[in-house]
This record gives sequence, structure tokens and C-alpha cells, in this order.
Amino acid sequence: MANKVVTFGEIMLRLTPPNYLRFVQAESFDVTYGGGEANVAVSLANFGEDAYFVTKVPDNPIGQAAINHLRRYGVKTDYILKGGERLGIYFNEIGASQRPSVVVYDRSHSSISEAKPEEFDWDKIFEGAKWFHFTGITPALSDNMAQACLDAVKKAKGKGITVSCDLNYRKKLWSKEKANKVMSELIKYVDYAIGNEEDAEMVFGIKASSSDVTKGELNEEGYKEVAKELLERFSLKGVAITLRESFSAFDNGWSALYYDGEDYYRSRRYMIHIIDRVGGGDSFAGGLIYALLNNYSPKDAVEFAVAASCLKHTVVGDFNHVTLNEVTALMKGDASGRVQR
Amino acid sequence: MANKVVTFGEIMLRLTPPNYLRFVQAESFDVTYGGGEANVAVSLANFGEDAYFVTKVPDNPIGQAAINHLRRYGVKTDYILKGGERLGIYFNEIGASQRPSVVVYDRSHSSISEAKPEEFDWDKIFEGAKWFHFTGITPALSDNMAQACLDAVKKAKGKGITVSCDLNYRKKLWSKEKANKVMSELIKYVDYAIGNEEDAEMVFGIKASSSDVTKGELNEEGYKEVAKELLERFSLKGVAITLRESFSAFDNGWSALYYDGEDYYRSRRYMIHIIDRVGGGDSFAGGLIYALLNNYSPKDAVEFAVAASCLKHTVVGDFNHVTLNEVTALMKGDASGRVQR
Amino acid sequence: MANKVVTFGEIMLRLTPPNYLRFVQAESFDVTYGGGEANVAVSLANFGEDAYFVTKVPDNPIGQAAINHLRRYGVKTDYILKGGERLGIYFNEIGASQRPSVVVYDRSHSSISEAKPEEFDWDKIFEGAKWFHFTGITPALSDNMAQACLDAVKKAKGKGITVSCDLNYRKKLWSKEKANKVMSELIKYVDYAIGNEEDAEMVFGIKASSSDVTKGELNEEGYKEVAKELLERFSLKGVAITLRESFSAFDNGWSALYYDGEDYYRSRRYMIHIIDRVGGGDSFAGGLIYALLNNYSPKDAVEFAVAASCLKHTVVGDFNHVTLNEVTALMKGDASGRVQR
Amino acid sequence: MANKVVTFGEIMLRLTPPNYLRFVQAESFDVTYGGGEANVAVSLANFGEDAYFVTKVPDNPIGQAAINHLRRYGVKTDYILKGGERLGIYFNEIGASQRPSVVVYDRSHSSISEAKPEEFDWDKIFEGAKWFHFTGITPALSDNMAQACLDAVKKAKGKGITVSCDLNYRKKLWSKEKANKVMSELIKYVDYAIGNEEDAEMVFGIKASSSDVTKGELNEEGYKEVAKELLERFSLKGVAITLRESFSAFDNGWSALYYDGEDYYRSRRYMIHIIDRVGGGDSFAGGLIYALLNNYSPKDAVEFAVAASCLKHTVVGDFNHVTLNEVTALMKGDASGRVQR
Amino acid sequence: MANKVVTFGEIMLRLTPPNYLRFVQAESFDVTYGGGEANVAVSLANFGEDAYFVTKVPDNPIGQAAINHLRRYGVKTDYILKGGERLGIYFNEIGASQRPSVVVYDRSHSSISEAKPEEFDWDKIFEGAKWFHFTGITPALSDNMAQACLDAVKKAKGKGITVSCDLNYRKKLWSKEKANKVMSELIKYVDYAIGNEEDAEMVFGIKASSSDVTKGELNEEGYKEVAKELLERFSLKGVAITLRESFSAFDNGWSALYYDGEDYYRSRRYMIHIIDRVGGGDSFAGGLIYALLNNYSPKDAVEFAVAASCLKHTVVGDFNHVTLNEVTALMKGDASGRVQR
Amino acid sequence: MANKVVTFGEIMLRLTPPNYLRFVQAESFDVTYGGGEANVAVSLANFGEDAYFVTKVPDNPIGQAAINHLRRYGVKTDYILKGGERLGIYFNEIGASQRPSVVVYDRSHSSISEAKPEEFDWDKIFEGAKWFHFTGITPALSDNMAQACLDAVKKAKGKGITVSCDLNYRKKLWSKEKANKVMSELIKYVDYAIGNEEDAEMVFGIKASSSDVTKGELNEEGYKEVAKELLERFSLKGVAITLRESFSAFDNGWSALYYDGEDYYRSRRYMIHIIDRVGGGDSFAGGLIYALLNNYSPKDAVEFAVAASCLKHTVVGDFNHVTLNEVTALMKGDASGRVQR
Repeated sequence: MANKVVTFGEIMLRLTPPNYLRFVQAESFDVTYGGGEANVAVSLANFGEDAYFVTKVPDNPIGQAAINHLRRYGVKTDYILKGGERLGIYFNEIGASQRPSVVVYDRSHSSISEAKPEEFDWDKIFEGAKWFHFTGITPALSDNMAQACLDAVKKAKGKGITVSCDLNYRKKLWSKEKANKVMSELIKYVDYAIGNEEDAEMVFGIKASSSDVTKGELNEEGYKEVAKELLERFSLKGVAITLRESFSAFDNGWSALYYDGEDYYRSRRYMIHIIDRVGGGDSFAGGLIYALLNNYSPKDAVEFAVAASCLKHTVVGDFNHVTLNEVTALMKGDASGRVQR
Repeated sequence: MANKVVTFGEIMLRLTPPNYLRFVQAESFDVTYGGGEANVAVSLANFGEDAYFVTKVPDNPIGQAAINHLRRYGVKTDYILKGGERLGIYFNEIGASQRPSVVVYDRSHSSISEAKPEEFDWDKIFEGAKWFHFTGITPALSDNMAQACLDAVKKAKGKGITVSCDLNYRKKLWSKEKANKVMSELIKYVDYAIGNEEDAEMVFGIKASSSDVTKGELNEEGYKEVAKELLERFSLKGVAITLRESFSAFDNGWSALYYDGEDYYRSRRYMIHIIDRVGGGDSFAGGLIYALLNNYSPKDAVEFAVAASCLKHTVVGDFNHVTLNEVTALMKGDASGRVQR
Repeated sequence: MANKVVTFGEIMLRLTPPNYLRFVQAESFDVTYGGGEANVAVSLANFGEDAYFVTKVPDNPIGQAAINHLRRYGVKTDYILKGGERLGIYFNEIGASQRPSVVVYDRSHSSISEAKPEEFDWDKIFEGAKWFHFTGITPALSDNMAQACLDAVKKAKGKGITVSCDLNYRKKLWSKEKANKVMSELIKYVDYAIGNEEDAEMVFGIKASSSDVTKGELNEEGYKEVAKELLERFSLKGVAITLRESFSAFDNGWSALYYDGEDYYRSRRYMIHIIDRVGGGDSFAGGLIYALLNNYSPKDAVEFAVAASCLKHTVVGDFNHVTLNEVTALMKGDASGRVQR
Repeated sequence: MANKVVTFGEIMLRLTPPNYLRFVQAESFDVTYGGGEANVAVSLANFGEDAYFVTKVPDNPIGQAAINHLRRYGVKTDYILKGGERLGIYFNEIGASQRPSVVVYDRSHSSISEAKPEEFDWDKIFEGAKWFHFTGITPALSDNMAQACLDAVKKAKGKGITVSCDLNYRKKLWSKEKANKVMSELIKYVDYAIGNEEDAEMVFGIKASSSDVTKGELNEEGYKEVAKELLERFSLKGVAITLRESFSAFDNGWSALYYDGEDYYRSRRYMIHIIDRVGGGDSFAGGLIYALLNNYSPKDAVEFAVAASCLKHTVVGDFNHVTLNEVTALMKGDASGRVQR
Repeated sequence: MANKVVTFGEIMLRLTPPNYLRFVQAESFDVTYGGGEANVAVSLANFGEDAYFVTKVPDNPIGQAAINHLRRYGVKTDYILKGGERLGIYFNEIGASQRPSVVVYDRSHSSISEAKPEEFDWDKIFEGAKWFHFTGITPALSDNMAQACLDAVKKAKGKGITVSCDLNYRKKLWSKEKANKVMSELIKYVDYAIGNEEDAEMVFGIKASSSDVTKGELNEEGYKEVAKELLERFSLKGVAITLRESFSAFDNGWSALYYDGEDYYRSRRYMIHIIDRVGGGDSFAGGLIYALLNNYSPKDAVEFAVAASCLKHTVVGDFNHVTLNEVTALMKGDASGRVQR
Repeated sequence: MANKVVTFGEIMLRLTPPNYLRFVQAESFDVTYGGGEANVAVSLANFGEDAYFVTKVPDNPIGQAAINHLRRYGVKTDYILKGGERLGIYFNEIGASQRPSVVVYDRSHSSISEAKPEEFDWDKIFEGAKWFHFTGITPALSDNMAQACLDAVKKAKGKGITVSCDLNYRKKLWSKEKANKVMSELIKYVDYAIGNEEDAEMVFGIKASSSDVTKGELNEEGYKEVAKELLERFSLKGVAITLRESFSAFDNGWSALYYDGEDYYRSRRYMIHIIDRVGGGDSFAGGLIYALLNNYSPKDAVEFAVAASCLKHTVVGDFNHVTLNEVTALMKGDASGRVQR
């Protein structure tokens, strides 16, 4: 029996030069659509949940194409508003070896960032819902969106809906100070928080003792401290931290830590040869939400989420096009990549 | 000996679904860059003139790619400013038969529209220049750009530089009233005006007696009246009107009328099976400027301009990638399309 | 307020060599999915109706991709069954000028053709439905599907649901004799019949006096006779006949005739330069159903349907990706193909 | 029972910008291989004859790819020599509407042009052969090739093999004077000559009274004179002249005239919307040879050859990928382009 | 002097999403053709042998395209039958890192699987042949094909033709029990058997002591036992076992073991970064047959076969497009991947 | 303030099969343009210098496209001559894992190789220049080019322009003896020499003690000897040697050694997963020239050059599309490939 899950945020048009070309060489862009919360919704739809994505897109064919892209992968788009000026865009150049991926954002003035809080009818949206998820990107889009998030989490809390938040700090959208102020209010209504190595420090000033992410070294003890402080400071039910080791644009180590207030659960670590790393964190969030919704043990939940997001790195685009069976097979140990006939 | 020509306006990223796909079907976009005045600059560079395009683009790889695109086709980019928020974008779906092309603009907040008039050093830009060209799109972008245009035409006038303007009314950018007000001031400094069937009416209320452009019928006498009134009201040296007969998205009639205050010169009429009609008018302007700069007779000037723009309709993208020899051959009568070995 | 419409039949994987290549040259195939009734469902979804498509697809990624393709364009796939051996395939080589398009079918043993009648829960499927549509292809797939169609039309009739049928004779699927026998039973439950120049003759032996379709000549009086006899023999509410004049693989005349038992309504005739003619008839059916559902006058209904299907010929793939506004604009007379900005 | 036919000449790598791009825009080239006599061989293989193509290609992967391309389409490559410096190349930009196709040759120093006459073992090559075909391009490549052609036609004549020659004058390869001298010797051994509107004049100074090919007007009587003079002056068994009317790069009229010394046979005239016109004349030659080999009547022979070459204009590349059935169907009158299911 | 080698089996249309896309994302499929025995034939043709592939394909353009694909790469197709219902298809999604490749078969009812044993004229086919090769896939297609294989191996044996068999167990085609029964009869006529880690166990119940293929660990001693038992139980002349270590979908170890009844020959082990692993085993068989036919020592034979198949993993498609020189260079030790100029 | 740098040599059309296809499989070629000295010019233009490339190209659209390609990336083309027969071509098949890249040259008879020394007006070309660079390829093209190089270096020396030379021995262009003779004269005017592991030996017989480049082992001490002997024998100011360790076509180690007559500077060593290795050495030269021109310390110069060329291996095509900031970031240590937002 599918659970109704609601995610809220921006969906952008993503434009990517094909075949490892750089922007200045490209004569065509591959077209997909994505965004933190939309990516989570697709993951959940793929795992069989009733995933609704809430946003606002312009009433033009580009906005329609974004909706169609979500529908194609099973996301329910009934609550998506139409109007406003434009769909946000991001240009994504895929890196290779020592050459990093480059993201150029062109997301200002998007329909969702200029939507008004009162346009969203949370009572209707949350009817029958079990879970609400957003990321730190949505409130960073504008004061209106910060307010809309606050409306949503309060309403969700009032209805007994579980709330999760991926901190996802974006320095181009707001300052650390602004993020701290807004997120400190929002997190009061959050049950589960997710972050990567930097988010907790950027948003809440909670810092792992010493880890230089550009060196690809992990500081496991430090992350435990961070998880613990996050959980305790904000009375969370669980905190998950994804741990990326960047050896090159092609090769990353990928694992996670989950803390439920009692124990720390350190996942298996995957050495990934990357096809597309955008949406890696979102696919982790999608996997974790699925696992928690379906009462996986903490250990299994983090393993499921890491396996799901390991696979995301091998899938083109923002969305994680993998099935429940595929994630489970990897989680259970078959990382051999043998042909499935 | 090449003449220095300056054009001023916006260059946009153009995104086009390939192979006649509609926006909602597209998984990739063909990438080019274009815009009215940039298109004119490319035409002039192809004909051997020293064409400078003046604009402002963001200081990121997308802005750089726009510059590179111009450089590739020989346009001088020395005076292009860098900064601001974004490069304007337009999405262009290619029509077919009874299905019209669709253009979705996403050009607000572009670097050029938000540039300040004083950023442009017209003294330096106009050093040694013979001709200045702009279209009605540039002043429509913002009050700042309207002012920048006024600065430019005044400076050009003061230096004895010939000024041409393609009226190019864009209803999504400004109202008829606003256009009338701004353009009435600018046109005082213009020597040559170019327009299509609708521009004179939209901008100055000068209307051809009766012609329904959706029917593909031409009203030649009416256009003569329009040309005459334009020339006389604004003391112009010449007025050119392009005449498009739209039979379908594939099949158009294409010709032009030129009035020099003494005689009317009606060009040959081409029946074109269209590959890409964007930039058709701009390629006419480019051809006309070239011909006038090089002292073609009025008859030859309009024939050269129409032949050049006829060929543009067979070229993919905004730019008119044709050589002087190719235009001359068509102008002299070989429209047989026989293979050139 | 959207109406629930149900269509029933096969969706196939369509494989098309790109860029006018012949099969023996192709190193890649463009991938779409389509089929008579699926195509009708997409048309209706595009016009805003609640369109449900009923079929059975294999439980593998190719079957899932077919479902996703329908979902992307707004068709409801809730009643699609999963199982069986394979998805039917058709290879479609696009013709050019005097070279005809070639279709190679590989549809035997498909999941839908081998599905059993009792697998379809028509009571549930028809809950709240206003209209049911199928074509002559579905009962031709197998005896099981003929029975399923009979179950469906009987159930629909019992529930007061309007039933339409596109005769769509396919000589590779069944003989004229078999078609006559099966369709004669099914048509008893049909309200509106649609056919092209040949269907009525092939299925019911009702023949237009004299028209050689390979010559591209129309015999309007003959088609009136056919429409009249169809309506009267089977007590139909309306009969529509599409009239294709094949001048070449690129150039077709396209129009239709509608007879409501009282008057004949002959539509406008479009001369189309074709991009993709597959699904032309289906898009007519989709347009007609929409118009009748929304109480258009007979004249307007046939004009809307012909305008919709005229546009289909300009759209790549089986599906008719056009909006209500686009069809209405063409129907109202703007066939000029002028750019929509 | 297949007949052994031998053709002799150059096969080149053909590089074509995709999607109507101009050379200066292209970031990729479509790759095919072709050349007058190779094209004839493919036509004959497609019609079921044992077609052997004789040439020399470099012993590198590009030469091998040319051989593979021929093998793929059924041409026997047993007598192809390997060695020499390079494979000839031609760049082919596809025209559109008033913009002509452009061919840039880069064929100098090719392996075949620098091969020595004695490398070809004509005794072995002609074992069991019924027909030998070459064009005026081969002897124009070099003095060595002119000698090789002379060796071949003498040997063929001695063995009672029918010889055909497509005059195919190429002004970039030799002067009219040189052509006249060489071809006057070769044609003594020829049974059937083929040419277009210009060849007879360029090579032998035999001129149609008055026809301006750039105007697309035909001068049927003039061509009859040309055919008659060719046949009589060189004691030929038959002369065929292809008649192209160039209205634009897209639209051509296409027909032919055949003279067997007794009667003139004027073929049906096709109005073609062109996909790729390269190899049009070669496909006519291939069709004519097939028809004469298989004892078609003169009328049927020219109709078959024109129908075959009409279809070539709709096929991408140099080669005519059509079957005997397809040509016969068109020859018998179905030019409607209706879908073949 | 080339040896005539005959292989017998199915050739399928292979459809592959480009650029690591998953099936549900693909809008186009790359098209190739392949199948175990066809792949072996191409290897042998590339090495200079006279390789004949025997099969049956439908008499339609898709069947013709399969033949053309073989001809292109030098395989003789003279004995290929035409007729039956369809060409088998397999969909092949390329894996990446921890995401495995996925193969969806759609091969039922293919022309070859439904061909009758008496359609194959083995006397004619084997005229002058030196070697016959088939795999365990062919008899698994149908009882008819099992009988055809039996006819073929008996006839081959009678004529003194060497017979090789790649066990190639396919669980989707038949049960272990059925395979055991059929293959036990066929192997009586086989001289050389080839298998991978699992085949001997699945078909004959001969099991390597302990090796978990999903872990990528090799059990060399176990494989020696397997090879020995196979050779001795069935009186074979030689047994080869390919050893794949699957570290991920990108990274595999690849080596082989050969046993000639006297000694074990363990090949060099290659660490391969994979482009396309389909046909890896077939290219090993092709290499081994070539080496044995040309009297390589056992050590050289297995090294040649492993080097050939190492290279196959770097080639797109089923076929191993490498030359004798390239394999020899790798076999002799240059795996540095330095540019060959 | 940008420095004027002049490079002199050949630019070729580069044709590359896409997606790791082999030549015999390719149906299209990706098109770029490149050549040793052109590649250096692009590097310098990207770093902000005034880079002029001097060559001769044919006066046709292919020659123009080469010029446009250079202009696009900021290279000044003012001194490029037009005329001659053809643009040199090279076919470049991209290798994978154990399969090496293959380069097929088709560069004979190119416009530049047949240009005459006196066509180049070195006085004008060197006006205001600071640096002149050429490689050993240019004098190898023809005696004329050897003379042109000698003219250039003498003129440069006379004007106090710094001269650098990349030895770049090409065995297909000339013998070791010829190279030795020509280069021994040219090097007298050179200030800085660059070479790889083999160049010094091939050209001057200066050999590193023992290093087998196919094994991927480095012999650092040996290279020091080579650098020392080169510098001392020819009175150079600096010698740089690039050190490539070829583990496979995908994986290379990359580093360099610089000797300024006093100390040896061994750079950081990068393990690169290669996208396109062509132009790797040229990008090193470009980086070194930039660093020396801008007075980097020897240590920083070699680190900058190695970082720049490390990045080149991740960029498609011959040219190194990287910015000063990107190289500096890598040089300063961030090789983590983390996304740049």
C-alpha cells in the first residue's frame, strides 16, 4: 500500500553539454529537469510510493515540459501551480578526471521563487499524507518561499505528518547568517535531518573537528559529533550525514552515517566511477525516507539509502531511475556489475 | 578596404529542439546564439566589413560562449562588456506546414537590459566607424537601454556616422505607446529605416491601407504609402520594407520595397521553402547596409538585400552564413539550386 | 470539468530510422511508442480530458517505458495490466517524395494480443466514464481481444457510455471475412463510426462508387453514399470519413466528411507538407470525440477534428502534441504558419 | 540467374554536414562512401546482379571502411587493390531552396589516380562477365587511368562484353580538349553512352540547340539531335540523356530520353522534392544497364531507369538503396507515396 | 590461404540506449546485430578466414539489414535462409560502476527458432569446410534447432571437419535438465569445448569446488578440475574456460585456462575498463578457433584468444572489430594503449 | 597587458569517430581542427595572451572553417594565408583500455606544406611580438617549410624575440637523419626546448639510459641526463621534458621535468583517466610559454604547465579549453574534481 509523500521546492531546466564537452564547445545541450525535492519525489515514485511534488512553473511549454518530465517518472503533479515569469535554469558541465564539473545557475526570478505563500493550499495538499520533505534550497529562494516552508512544516506538524529536511546549503542563494536565522526556525518542526560534510557547519555552525574535503579524507569521529549535536540541539529523531570522498571528478568514495539518538550506523563504503553525480544527495534522502516509511531498521535504512544513491551516480540526469529490486540487490551485496539477463 | 560598422543590442542563447520536435518532446536543444543586431553584424562580417557588436554579457562560460560564437564568424567583440546577472534566452520551436514556429522568451534581467548607459564608451567605440545600426528591440529592453541608444545615436550623428534602424516592434517588450514615445525621439538621428509589414503601424501608427498578413496577400500600394510617410515624417534618406507572404510555416513569399524619396524599388520575389526563418529581417538589414555602404544603386541595394535574406531562410540558426559571391550569384538570377562544384 | 474517456487497444514500441534513412542504412532508431487507441488517448489528454488507456504490457523495462511515455503526455495508466511475453513492435521507415513510408510489423505474441478477456475489470474501468473508444485493430489482434472488445462495448452500452469505433482495417491482422463477422457484432453497440476511404469497403463491403486512392482523386459523392449506408445499416448517430489525397510521401490533401443522419458536413481541405503521417487518423478521432463530448456543432466538430489531424501530420511520432488553443486557431483559419511569440 | 557486371573507377570518402548545416557551422560530418561507378555497382547489386567494383584504395582503416561500405550493400570487392597514398575525399554540403549544394573535392593523389595500368588483371576480372561500365571520371583522374580504361575496354570488346559509358564531364579534372582527345579514343569501344544535358557538348562539342539549364527549361528537340549525333558519330547501339530541370535545390524535374537508332523514347517526368541528389545520374545508369541486360524494351528500359533514379533522389548518400520491386512499382505508376505496410 | 569455417545459430537485432541511458530514459536506440555464432564468424573473417554464418532471417528489410551487417564485416552469407516470422531482438542496457548491464530478450518465434532441420543443406554448406562451430544457444532455441545441430555435427564429423562448441548456458531458453539431455548427445561429436565459470556446472553438473562469481574471486584449481573432467568425460581434444572477475560493470579481470589433456595453460590476466562486454566470450572462441586452425601452440592459442577477447571489451557492439596485427601486438605484450600513428 | 606570441605550423581537419567507435564502424565523424602550433596558440589565447597563428589554408569553405575554429577560441588569424591545394587531414580513432588510439594521417600536399618561404612576411608578423614558437613538425612538412622556419627563427633572433621549440619528432614525416640535419641548424636560434621521452633521441641521438615507454616505467635520472645534454649542447636557456606513463589507453601518469641549467624541477605527477590525449604535449608547451612569459619561477612554471596539460587530457579535441583560474586551482592542489558552483 503506497504512502502519500509530499515534497516542495523548485524544479529547474537542466542543460548539459553532451560527451564531456565544455560549455564553450557545445553546439547542443542535453535537456533534463531536476531539483532537490523533485529528485526525492522521483526516487519515492520509483520505489512505489505516491509521491507528490509541489511547485510553481510558468504557464508555457517549458513549464509544461517540466511537469511532463515528472509525470513520466510517476510523480503526481496535481498540486503544481502555473504562472509567473520563468522556469529556473541551471547549466551543468560534466567534469572528468582532474577537471571538476561546473554548474552555472540561472535561477533568479523563477516562478517558484516569486510565488506567494498563500498560493499553496497546504490543507488540501497534505490530505492523507504521511511524510513531508523539503531541503534548505527552498527557503533560500526568497522570503516568500521561507514563509511558505514555515507554513508547510507547521501545518504538517499539526496533522502529525513526519517532516524531513535536507539542509543543502547553497552559498549563492543566501548568506550563512540568513540561512542560520531561517533554518533555525524551520528545523523546530523537522523530525529527520540530512546533510553532507559541510551543511551543518554552514547553516548551524556545527563543525566536524578536522576534515579537508578537497583531500578526500574522512573524519568519521568528527561526523559523529556533528550528528549528535544536530540531533540534540534540535530534538530530532534521526540525523543522516552523507560522506563523499572526492578523489577526482570520476572517482568518489560514497558512504553515510546515521544517528538515531542511541547508536551510530556507518554504512558500507562504495568506490564509484561516476556517470552523473548531480542528485546524489537527493537520492540518498529519497532512499532514507522510503526506508523509514517502511520501517527498516536504522542499519538497513542507511544501507538502503547509500545503495540507492550509489546507483544514482551511475544514472544520467538528476533523477534516480532505479527500482526497489535493484537497490535491494546492491544493498545485499552484489556490486559485481554482472549482466542481468 | 573594410568599413567599420557598429551594431548595438542583445545577444541571446537560442535553444531549439532538433528535427522538428515540439518543446514537450525534446530531450536536447540545439544551441546557437543570436539577436537582431548581432545577426546584422555577422552578415556584415561575412561580406568583409569590420563589424563590431556592442553588448554586455555575464562573466561566466555561457557569456563567453556567446562571445566565441560571434568571434567564430568574424565579428569583432572588443567592446563587449562583461558582468551582470544572466544571458537572455529564447526557446525556438521550429514549425512545419500549418504548425507555426513558437518562440518562448526568457530574456528579462539580462546583463544588457540591466546595463547602465554610462558603461558604454561611445567615443572609443565609434572611433573610425562609418555606420551605426540598432533595432527597436534594444531601446525596448529597458529605460537604461533606451537612454544608451539615445546616447549612441547622438554621438554617431555628431561624428557624421550614418545611422540605420530596424523598427522591429516586439509587443512582449513594450507597449505601442511606450514604443512610440521612445522611438519618436531616436528616429530623429536615423538616416535609414527598415521595417516589416507591421512595424510602422505598431510604432508610429503608420498603416498600410489593407493587408491581412495571415492571408499571405500583399498590398503593394499600401506599403508605398507607408514608406513615403515614414521617410517624409522623419526626414529619412531611405526606407525599406520587407514583405513576407506566409503561406505556411514551410512556404513563404519574400520580397522588399525600397524608397529613397524619389523612386520606389520593388525587388524580385522569392518563393522560399524555409529551413530557418529567424533572422530573416536582420539579414535583409545586413545586406542593405552593405550595399549602401558600398554605393550600390537603390535597385541593386534592395535586390542584394533581398537575395541575402532569401538565402538566410535556408541557413540554420540566427546568423546568415553566406558569402558575397553567393548573394551576388542569386541576385544575378541563378535560383536554380544547381550544385556548386 | 474534464470527462473520463476510456480507450482500449495495443501500444507498440515504434522504431524509426532518423533523418530519412532507409532500414538497411540505419545505425540507430528513434524510439517512440504508439498505437491507434493510445494515440486517441493522448489527443484527449492534451485537450484536457481525463483519458485512460487500457492495455497489457510485459512486466519489463520496455513495457514500463511504454507506460512512462503515456504518463508523460498526461494519459492515465491506472488500468494497464502487466504480464505476458512482449511488447509489440513496429518499424517505421519515413518516406520522401515518390518513395513511400514502409511499415514492418513485429506485433505477434504481444502481451495484449494474448491477454484473456476476463483480465479486464470493465466495471471498475468504466466507473464514471462518459465515452469509450476502440478501433478495428483491437479485435483483430486475437479472438481473445475480439471477445474483450465485445465485453467492453456491452458493458459500456449498459452503463450509458457513448461508444465510438474507428474501423481501421488491417489486412495483415485478419481477412475481410473475419473482420466482417467480428465487426458486424461489435458495431451494434457503437454510436459513432470513423473510417477512411477503404475501411468501410474492406470491413462491411460498403464501397464508394469510383475513386482510385493511388491517384489522389476524391469522389465526394461516393463517400456520402458510404457514410449514409454505414449510418443507416448500423443505426449510428454519426459517421465520419477522412479523405486523404496522396500526391507524394511529402504532400497530401487532407479533409473529412461527417454525416449525422441529417446533413453532410464537408470540412475545409488542407494541403499538408508532411513530417510524420502516422496517427493522422487517430488524431482525427481524438478531435472528433473531444468536439462531440463538448457539444460542438457537427460542422465545428468535423472542422476541429480535421484541424487537429492536419497538425498531427506536422508532429514527429504517433502522438498529436498540440493544444486546444493551437487546434482552435487553425480551425478558425490561421494556416499561415506565422511565428507564435 | 545473376549476370556478372564490372564497373571501374574511384570510390571516395564523402563527408556531409548534417541537418542542412553549412560547412562553417558543422561540428560533425555524416560519413558515406561513393563515386560514379561504385554507385552503379550498388544499384546493380540491389537489383540482384553480381556486381564487381574495381578500384584501388589505401591499405589503412579508411580504405577498409570504403570496402566494407560496398560489401554491406552486396557489391563484390574481390578485385579491389590495396596500396597507394590516400582515399579521395569529397565534402558535400546539402543545399536548400535557393541555396545550392556545394561540393569541395579533395581527390588528388588518391590511390586509384596513382595506380598503374598494369596493376589491373583484366583477364581475370572479366572472367565470365557480361557487361563493363565506366564513366568519364575515371580516365580524367590521370593518364594512367586513361590508359587503364583503354586497356579495359579493348579487353572487354575482345571478349564480347557489352560496354557502357557515362560521359560525366568534370571540369575540375581535365580540360575540354583533353577530355575530347581521350574520350574520342575510348568511345570507339563503347556500346551504350549516357550523358546529361551538358556532357556531350563539353566532351565532344555536340550541343543541344538552345537550353539554359539554370532556367530549368527543357529543349526536347535539341536533345534528340544530340542523341542522334552521338549514336551516329560513334556507331553506338543506344544513347540515353538525362534531363534535369532545376527549379531549386529542393525541387527538380527529372526525366530522360533514350535513342536506339530507330526511335526516341521520352520517359515520364517526375517532380521530385529532393533529399539527396548526388548519384542521381549513376542510379539512372544502373537502372538502364539492368534493364538492357534483362532485355527490357527500350521504352521500359528508360522508364525503369528514370523511376530508379527518381527514387535515388529520396535516399541519403550516393548509393541507391531501392529494390527491384520498389522501382517496378513506381515505374508502373504508383507515385502516391502511400505507406507500404 | 584462408580456411572455410562455418558457424550456425541466431543473429538478433540489438537495441541499446546510447550514452549510458537506462531503458526508461531512452529516446533512441543504437542499432547493431549480433549473436554468439555470428560474433565468432566476424572474428574469423577479421583474421582472414573464410567465415560462413548459417541462419534464417525474415524476408523483410530488418532481416536484410542483419545480412548486410554481416557482409559489411566480411562474413559470407550465401547459406542464410530467408523466411519465417521475425528477427529475434534483444535490448541491451549498458551498465556503469555498480549498476549492472540489463538484457531484455525478445527472441521467441524468430525465423531461426522456427526453421525446420531439413531446410539446411549441410552437404552443400560443409563443402570444403575445415571447421564447424556452434554454441549451446542454438539447440536451446527449439527442438527443431536441437535436431538441426545434431544433423550438422554428425555430418561434420562424417566429413572430418573439426567441431567446436561454446557451452553458453542460457537459463531463459531451457532448463538445466533439458540442456543436459540435448548437449550430452551433441557433445559426442565435439572436438573442442569452451565455457565460462558457470556453463559446465549448469549443463553437465561439473562444478568448480568453490568460487563465488559475484565476488570476483577466482578459484584456479577448481577450474582445472572442471576442464579435466569435461575433457575426459567427453573425449575432447581441448577444453577452454574463460575466467571473468567482475569488480564492477566497468572493471573486470579477464583471463582463461586451456587444457589439452596433457597440460594446463593459464593465460595472462587483463584488467579491463569495459566499453562493451557483450560478445566477450564469443571473441575468445573466435580467437581460439583461429589459433588452433593455424597451428598455434596451446600456450599461444590461449594467449591469442584472451588478447583478442580483451580487445573486444573495448569495442562497441557484439562484434570484435580488431585485426590480426592488433591482437598479436597485445598478445606480445604491449598493453600500454599508446597511440598508433 | 597581453603579450604578442606567434606560432607557426599546420592546422589540420581532425575527423574522429564518436563514442569510441572504430573507423570501420563509423557513420559520422566528429569534426575539430588542430595541430601542434595551433594548439599552443589556443592555450595562450585562453590564458589571455595575444596569440597569432601563422599558416596557409586553402581558399575554400574547409579552410575557412579551420580559421573560424581558431577565431572562436580567440586566436588571431590575421597572418593566415589562403591558397594551395588542400587542408591536411588526420583521422583519429579514440582508444580504450588496452586498445590504442589510432591516427591515420592524410596530410600530404597540404597548402602549408607546399607554401613557399617567401610568402611569409616575418617582419610584419613579428611586429611587437615577444615570443615565437614552432615544433619539429613544421620543418618536417617540406624543404620549403624547413626554410620558412629558418627564416623565422633568424628574424626572431634578430629582433630579440624569445624562441621556443617542441622537438616533436614524427617518423612518418621524415627520417632521423633528415631531422637531425634540419633541426641541428634550427636549434641554434632556440631559447627553450621541449620534448617527450623519445624526441631527443630521435632527433639528436640523445638517449635516456634505460626506459621502456611501453611499460610505463620512468627513468628520472636518465631524463635529467637528457635535459642536461640538450641544454649544454645547444646553449639553451631551459629544457622541459614531459613524462608520460602509459598504463592503458585510459590511464596515464603525467608529469614533467624542467632544467634551467642550474637546477632540475620535477613536477607533481597526475594519474589521469583520459578523455582525449591529443594535444597533451602542446598544452604543456602553451602552459610553459605562458609561465615563462609571465616570469613564474622555474618550479611554478613547470607545475603550471603540467597542471594545464593534465586538464587537457580531460578536454575533447586538440585544443585546451581551460582558463587561467582553472589551471591555477589545480596547480595549487585541488585535484578533487569537486563541483564548481
